[in-house]
Amino acid sequence: MLNLASETSREWVRRASSRIGDVLLDHAHCEKKAAGAAVRMLFRYPEHGFLQYPMTELAREELAHFQRVLTLLETRAIAFGRQKPSAYGGRLRQLVRAEEPHQLVDLLLVSALIEARSCERFRLLSETLEDGELVRMYSDLLGCEARHHHTYVELAQQLAPPGNVRQRLGELARREAEILEIPSAQVRLHS
Amino acid sequence: MLNLASETSREWVRRASSRIGDVLLDHAHCEKKAAGAAVRMLFRYPEHGFLQYPMTELAREELAHFQRVLTLLETRAIAFGRQKPSAYGGRLRQLVRAEEPHQLVDLLLVSALIEARSCERFRLLSETLEDGELVRMYSDLLGCEARHHHTYVELAQQLAPPGNVRQRLGELARREAEILEIPSAQVRLHS
Repeated sequence: MLNLASETSREWVRRASSRIGDVLLDHAHCEKKAAGAAVRMLFRYPEHGFLQYPMTELAREELAHFQRVLTLLETRAIAFGRQKPSAYGGRLRQLVRAEEPHQLVDLLLVSALIEARSCERFRLLSETLEDGELVRMYSDLLGCEARHHHTYVELAQQLAPPGNVRQRLGELARREAEILEIPSAQVRLHS
Repeated sequence: MLNLASETSREWVRRASSRIGDVLLDHAHCEKKAAGAAVRMLFRYPEHGFLQYPMTELAREELAHFQRVLTLLETRAIAFGRQKPSAYGGRLRQLVRAEEPHQLVDLLLVSALIEARSCERFRLLSETLEDGELVRMYSDLLGCEARHHHTYVELAQQLAPPGNVRQRLGELARREAEILEIPSAQVRLHS
C-alpha cells in the first residue's frame, strides 16, 4: 500500500528508541523540510494550476506538524537548532531526472517515498516506544503521512500515464531501499 | 498604527477597481510570496528558536489565504499562472542591510511594511468595491495583515532595542512610500 521496496530493520527501531532526542529534533527538521519542498514546488511550477491547491494544503499540514514537534521539544527542554541531517534526502534528489515533465514526476514520487518511509517508521515507533505522548504523536501522524504519499502519487499521475508512474515509482522505491542500506553515523528518521 | 509614511491615492483605488482581475491574480501571488518569505526565514535562521513557531503560524495563515484567493479565482474563471509582478518587492529588498543582525531586522521590518500596506489597501478595496464577495474577503483579510505587521515588528524587537527598531522602521517606511510613488505600468496590490 505504501509502495516501499523494503521493511525497516528492528536494528533501526532499537537505535532510534535509544537516541529518541536526536530523532525528535530530526523529526522537527523533516516536517519543516517537507513543507519547504511543497512550497518550493508552488513557486517552481506556477503554470501547473492543478498542483497549487493540494500542495498548499499539504504544506499547511506539514507546518502544523512542525509546530507540534517544536512544542514537544520545548516541553522536553530539547533546544531547536541546526542538526546534521542524514544523507538520505540528498541521495534521493540525485535520482531526479533533469528534463521535464520527468523532473516534476520524479520530485513528486521522491516526496511520495519519503512520506511512505516516514509513515512506516512512525508506525514502528508508535508500536515500540513506552512514552505515551510519543506514541500518541506518532499514531496521529502516520495516517497523514500515508495520505500525503497518495496525494503525491495522484499528482504525478496527472503528468504521466498511470502505468509509467507505477513503473517509475517501483524503480525509485528500489533505489530508496538501497539508500537506506548505506550505514550512517547519525540516528535519524531516515538513516 | 500601521507605521506607514504615506496614504494610498484615490487614483490607485480607481485603477485597481477597474482592473480587479489583475489585482486578484496578483493578490494570489502575494499571499504565496508572503508564505514563501516566512518559510525561507525558517530555513535561514534555525538558530533563532524564537522565530520558528510564530513564523510558521504566519506561513500557515498566508497559505490559507492563498487557497482562499485561488478558490475565488476559480469561481471567476481567472486562470492561475505566471504574472509580471510590480517592482515593489524587489526595490524593498534592496534596502535590506548585508550584515547580521541588521539583515534579519530589516527582513522582518520590510515584511512588516508589506503587511501594513496590504492592510491599508485591503481596507480601501473593502470600502470601495461594489462586489459583495470581494468586500467580504478584503474585510476579513485586513485584520490578519495588521496582526502580521505587529508580529514582524515584535520579532524585530527581540533582535535590537525597541528604539532602534522604531527608528529603522520609520526610515524604511519613508523609503517604502517613495517606492510606491514610482510610476508602474501594471496595476498590482503594491504598484
